Amino acid sequence: MATSKNNLKEEFLKEVSDGKHRFIDIALDSELPKRIREAVSKLRKFKKVIILGIGGSALGGIAVMRALYRPLKHMEDDSTHFFFLDQIDPDLIYHLSHNLDLKETHFISISKSGDTIEPASLYKLFYQKIVDAGLDPKEHFSFVTGEDGFFAEEAKKIGAIHLILPPYLSGRFSVLSEVGLFPAVLAGINIEEILEGARQAYEEFYTALDLAITQDKLYQEGKIITVVFPYSYRLNRFADWYIQLMAESLGKTKDIGPTPIRAIGPTDQHAQLQLFMEGPRNKQVLFLEVEKHHHDPQIPGENYTLEDLINAEKKGTGQALEDAGIPTQTIKLPYIDAKAVGNLIMTLELQIALLGKMYGIETYKQPGVEAGKKITREILQNS
Amino acid sequence: MATSKNNLKEEFLKEVSDGKHRFIDIALDSELPKRIREAVSKLRKFKKVIILGIGGSALGGIAVMRALYRPLKHMEDDSTHFFFLDQIDPDLIYHLSHNLDLKETHFISISKSGDTIEPASLYKLFYQKIVDAGLDPKEHFSFVTGEDGFFAEEAKKIGAIHLILPPYLSGRFSVLSEVGLFPAVLAGINIEEILEGARQAYEEFYTALDLAITQDKLYQEGKIITVVFPYSYRLNRFADWYIQLMAESLGKTKDIGPTPIRAIGPTDQHAQLQLFMEGPRNKQVLFLEVEKHHHDPQIPGENYTLEDLINAEKKGTGQALEDAGIPTQTIKLPYIDAKAVGNLIMTLELQIALLGKMYGIETYKQPGVEAGKKITREILQNS
Repeated sequence: MATSKNNLKEEFLKEVSDGKHRFIDIALDSELPKRIREAVSKLRKFKKVIILGIGGSALGGIAVMRALYRPLKHMEDDSTHFFFLDQIDPDLIYHLSHNLDLKETHFISISKSGDTIEPASLYKLFYQKIVDAGLDPKEHFSFVTGEDGFFAEEAKKIGAIHLILPPYLSGRFSVLSEVGLFPAVLAGINIEEILEGARQAYEEFYTALDLAITQDKLYQEGKIITVVFPYSYRLNRFADWYIQLMAESLGKTKDIGPTPIRAIGPTDQHAQLQLFMEGPRNKQVLFLEVEKHHHDPQIPGENYTLEDLINAEKKGTGQALEDAGIPTQTIKLPYIDAKAVGNLIMTLELQIALLGKMYGIETYKQPGVEAGKKITREILQNS
Repeated sequence: MATSKNNLKEEFLKEVSDGKHRFIDIALDSELPKRIREAVSKLRKFKKVIILGIGGSALGGIAVMRALYRPLKHMEDDSTHFFFLDQIDPDLIYHLSHNLDLKETHFISISKSGDTIEPASLYKLFYQKIVDAGLDPKEHFSFVTGEDGFFAEEAKKIGAIHLILPPYLSGRFSVLSEVGLFPAVLAGINIEEILEGARQAYEEFYTALDLAITQDKLYQEGKIITVVFPYSYRLNRFADWYIQLMAESLGKTKDIGPTPIRAIGPTDQHAQLQLFMEGPRNKQVLFLEVEKHHHDPQIPGENYTLEDLINAEKKGTGQALEDAGIPTQTIKLPYIDAKAVGNLIMTLELQIALLGKMYGIETYKQPGVEAGKKITREILQNS
C-alpha cells in the first residue's frame, strides 16, 4: 500500500507538470495577488458589492467570505456589505433592485464562459438601472471572465476593470484564482496568506492523498453517500462549495459517482442524524472541526463554554456514528485564519482531483448540464 | 390500484381519529390562532426577535418566514428583524451578543422537551445579559415549550409568556402549531390563512397520497435518494425543513429510509446537475415551482422576464432529467401566499406520515440521536 500511495503521488505530480491540473499552477503563481491588488487599487470604496455569478463563480467566494469576513458584519453600518447574487427569483431581484443605493454599489460580474444566462440577465437589468440613474457604468461594474464572450465585450465597451480567466480553468476549481480572490481582496482579506496555506497543503500532499484513498475505499464498500459535516458556522458554506466540487467532478458515469450531502453541526444532529445512525448504512462522513475560536463565551452557571459544547458534540456524534458502523474522517483546523482556509481549499481540491484520476474520469468537464440548457433556450425563444 | 389507494386513505383517516397523527388535530384546532394572538397582544413591539431553538423548533419557522415575510426586509431599517439562532458557533454568538441592542430585542425560547442543550445554553447566556443590563426578563423572553422542563420552570420563575406544547407533538411536525405560528404572528403573517390552506390540503388528501405512492414506488425501484429542488428563493428553506421531516421520520432501519438531499434552482444546475444527469441512477426529484410571482422584472433588450427564465429553466431541467431516466414530481404553487404555504406544509407532512404508515415505522420518534448526546454529556462532565 505504501508503494502504491507513493506511486499515485508521483503519477499525479507528473500530470501536474504535464499541465493536466492547472488549478494548482494558478494558485501557485506568485504574480496572482499583485494582479488582483493592482485592479482593486483603481476602484473607489463602495458600501455594497454585489457579485453576479452562479455555481463555481459564487460558491468558493461565499465560503471564503463566511469564514474570514467578520461574522455578522452586516449588522454594523460602517462596513461594506457583500452579496453574492447567485439567484434569479423574480421577487428577490425586484426587492433587491428597488432597495439598492446605486451610487454606493459596485457589481462584479463573474463567468468563465462570459455568457452564463443568469448573471448575464442580471447584468443587463442592473446596467440599465445604473445608466437610468445617470451613473457611469465604468465605475460600477468590473468583470472576471475569459478573453471572449458577452462579459468580455461589455468590459471593453464600457472600459471597466477586466480580470482575465484562462480558458482551461474549471469554475469549481477556481476559488484560488481571480474568481474567489478579487471579492476577497475587496473585503480586506489577506489573500497572500490564503495562497500560502494552499502552497503548504500542496507541499504536504499526504493529507489530501489519505482523504482520497479512504473516501474511495469506503465508496467501494457501499458508502456511496458522503456527508460533509462542518461543526462551525464560519465553515458551513464550505459544504456547498465541496458538494459542487465532488458532484460535478466525479459524477460522470452510471457506475461510479459519490453523492455528497450537507449536514451542519450541531444543527443537523436535530434533523438528519436519526437517518445517518439507524437508516441504510450507505453513508460516510467528512467532518470539519475547529479547535480554537477567536472568542469563546462561558455559559453562566455551567462548567462549559460554547467551544467546549460544540467540540464535545462533534466528538460525541463522531463516536456514536463510528459505533453504529458509519465511518468518519475529520479535517481539523487549529484556528480559522486565512492560511488555514487556503490549506483547507487546496486539500479538498487535491482530494477530488486525485479521486478523478483514480476513477479515470474527465474531472474538469461537465457535459451533463447541456441538455437542460438547450431545452430552456428553446422554451425562451418560443415564449 | 384505485382500491388500494382508497383503502390506504381510509386506514389512515381511521388512525387520525384514533389519535395517531396528532399534528393534524393541532393544525385543525380552531382555537389555535386565538391562543397565539392573545399571547402576542401582551408583547410590546421589538425591533429584533431572536428565536432560540434548533431542528424542528426552527426549520419550519424559517421556511415560513422566508416564504411570507418580505424578501430582504432586513435591508429596510424600520422593520423588525427575525433571527433564528439554531447555531452555537462561539464566534457567531460572541459577535451577535455584542452587537445586539438588548432593549429592543425579544427572545423566544422554543423546545418541546424544554431542555435541549443548545437553546438552553444560549438562553442562560442571554438571560444573564438582560439582567446585567438592568432590564426585566419578563419583557424580553417568551417560551414555547411543554408543561415541564427547564424552559417551563424559567417561564414560571420570571412570569413570562408561556405557550404550552402537548407532549405528543413531534418537533418536525410542529410548524402548524405554536412553534411555527407564534414567530409568524409577530412578523405580521396571516396565520389563519396558513391554517386554511392546511385544512384544504387535508380535505383534498389525494395530492399527498399520490406523492407518497410515487415516492415509494420509485424508492423500491432503486431511487433511494430524493432530491428536493425548489425553483424559488422564497421556498428554498422548505428544502431544509423537508429534509428533517423525511430523514428523521423515515430513517429507522437498515433496510429502508430514503436519503433526502437539497438542490436549489437554478443555482444547482451549475453545481449538482452533472451528477444527477450522468452519475448513478439512484435519484428521484421533487420540484417546487411557483407559477406567478408578485413582481416580475423584464430583462432589458431581451424577450423574456425573470419569471419566464426561472420557469423555463425548471421545465428544461425537468425534461432533461426525465429523458436521462431520473423521474421527477412537481408541486406547483400558483402564487406564494399564506394559504399556498399552509397547503404545501400539510401536503408534505401528510406525504411523510403516509410513507411512515406504509413502511410500518414509528414515524414520530427519533431514538437514533440519543447515543451521541450521552457521549457529549460525558465529555462535558469530565471537562
